[in-house]
Amino acid sequence: MSATIIAPVKEDILAAAERIEPFIHRTPVITSKSIDQMIGAEIYFKCENLQKAGAFKARGATNAVMSLPADDMKRGVATHSSGNHAAALSMAARNRGIPAFIVMPGNSSKVKIAAVQSYGGRITFCEPTLAAREETLNQVLAQTFATEIHPYNDLRIIAGQATAALELIEDAGPLDYIFAPVGGGGLLSGTSLSAFYFSPGTKVIAGEPAGADDAYQSFYKGEFVPSVNPETIADGLRTSLGTLTFPIIKKYVTDIHTVSDFNIAEAMKLVWERMKLIIEPSAATPLAALLKNKARYSGKRIGIILSGGNVDLAKLPWQ
Amino acid sequence: MSATIIAPVKEDILAAAERIEPFIHRTPVITSKSIDQMIGAEIYFKCENLQKAGAFKARGATNAVMSLPADDMKRGVATHSSGNHAAALSMAARNRGIPAFIVMPGNSSKVKIAAVQSYGGRITFCEPTLAAREETLNQVLAQTFATEIHPYNDLRIIAGQATAALELIEDAGPLDYIFAPVGGGGLLSGTSLSAFYFSPGTKVIAGEPAGADDAYQSFYKGEFVPSVNPETIADGLRTSLGTLTFPIIKKYVTDIHTVSDFNIAEAMKLVWERMKLIIEPSAATPLAALLKNKARYSGKRIGIILSGGNVDLAKLPWQ
Repeated sequence: MSATIIAPVKEDILAAAERIEPFIHRTPVITSKSIDQMIGAEIYFKCENLQKAGAFKARGATNAVMSLPADDMKRGVATHSSGNHAAALSMAARNRGIPAFIVMPGNSSKVKIAAVQSYGGRITFCEPTLAAREETLNQVLAQTFATEIHPYNDLRIIAGQATAALELIEDAGPLDYIFAPVGGGGLLSGTSLSAFYFSPGTKVIAGEPAGADDAYQSFYKGEFVPSVNPETIADGLRTSLGTLTFPIIKKYVTDIHTVSDFNIAEAMKLVWERMKLIIEPSAATPLAALLKNKARYSGKRIGIILSGGNVDLAKLPWQ
Repeated sequence: MSATIIAPVKEDILAAAERIEPFIHRTPVITSKSIDQMIGAEIYFKCENLQKAGAFKARGATNAVMSLPADDMKRGVATHSSGNHAAALSMAARNRGIPAFIVMPGNSSKVKIAAVQSYGGRITFCEPTLAAREETLNQVLAQTFATEIHPYNDLRIIAGQATAALELIEDAGPLDYIFAPVGGGGLLSGTSLSAFYFSPGTKVIAGEPAGADDAYQSFYKGEFVPSVNPETIADGLRTSLGTLTFPIIKKYVTDIHTVSDFNIAEAMKLVWERMKLIIEPSAATPLAALLKNKARYSGKRIGIILSGGNVDLAKLPWQ
């Protein structure tokens, strides 16, 4: 028997859904006959690329920012992030009328920097190492007394990300599987909890880049393996699992499949061409995993979370 | 008083909606806070780029193919088209189990040729002139006894295209305006009829490329002006109005705005970047028209039909 783990309960996810509802899009669930035929399954794509700020991250950040007591929040929130969490947290903070302090590596993409700025996030740049990011964030926290909101290792974030799968389950009907990407594990752990609570017959599968397969290693070793020197075009999936997300994933996720960057680019192009949806490499990773293993999922009803669409249009993997 | 014109009645559009429902997507209506703020209006985007075969054309083609008597249809349907109508007609014919004979100019884009082939359309290539297209189609019709389905100058097509605005009106609530692109006028005439029948307070505005402004010229002269040597990146909007579509447009459309290809490319990129939706240049034309004239539409509730998303990913206007 597995030990008791710390995780959002069913009511936390339902409360998160209600709390964030005024601030986020209920994103559509879209199907594609040609991709269904290619895979031999019935696939329901949950379009979090069409979410506010372009990714599911708006869910967790909004849940965290909107659920903290007013006194704790008045000095603002802070995080270090080079990606979608930075923009999502800036947006959520603006919706609450408080500042967001964002520590970003100086080599972050211009698109991501512009997104944070467009939501009024206050950026402090640092060297592109984890040590520099953490040290700079500590300085910012010491100066501002802001509240740190971690991108994934936070129960409010996990409960918020879980609402994407909750909506998918409501809209797509009974699913045999839900596929999600895994980086730090906020989306994957939340997805697996929503399946467990709201659709117990649905198994959750992760797609992970082979060049950043720390979740795969951790899952099969049964112990935490950090992400060291990850190399993948799926820039949202390079981080290590967290102390909260890993135990949830270990308990509630059925399998993790790894895929090459070539597989990811191919799946990404397929969605652009056939579905007319702009998705980023991270978002294509679960479909790449399904394409690679399609014989195992033949005839099944499968949900896929298209996690985000923030991509530099001038730097596409097939160019 | 204007003379009586030939047009689908309200019941034709409602019957079309019911007839095509099993074969098409009810496409989502999506909003973007950042584009709303940029324009100072509340905009509801009807995502026909997410329609089957990637464009609203699936509606009209399906309505035409599904409404003809079985005896007339068994030898198949035929058309000449270099674009979305060709793929849509091929798809509709396959859904009815009959052949589709498509005459395409030899210089049609590879993406469009591949789309027709993927739906089982039987292609006859010809020279890229209207005379060659019509002559080749006549030869095909003489050999096959197929039924010609014109891309826009056909009441069943107009009624089918009208269902996009019908759904938009149902989903977005009361609108002050609906913007649509105009090429041959099938979508625009159908949109204006749906507004007239189902939301009489809603005015319909067209966006048209300045390099193919025959509808603008015709509308303000009050008489048909053909499209001669059109030059625009909006390849779906190069055709002349039809004898059926022009009178409907003259009677039910409020205004036509013209925009440059630069305006179109800018609006297209905006939708890609902010909304994560792949749209083709033709689909960006109404938003370009709204952006250019935003002061006139300030504070209004506006629907925009994003007409299609079939674009060659290797040949984008900003590359």
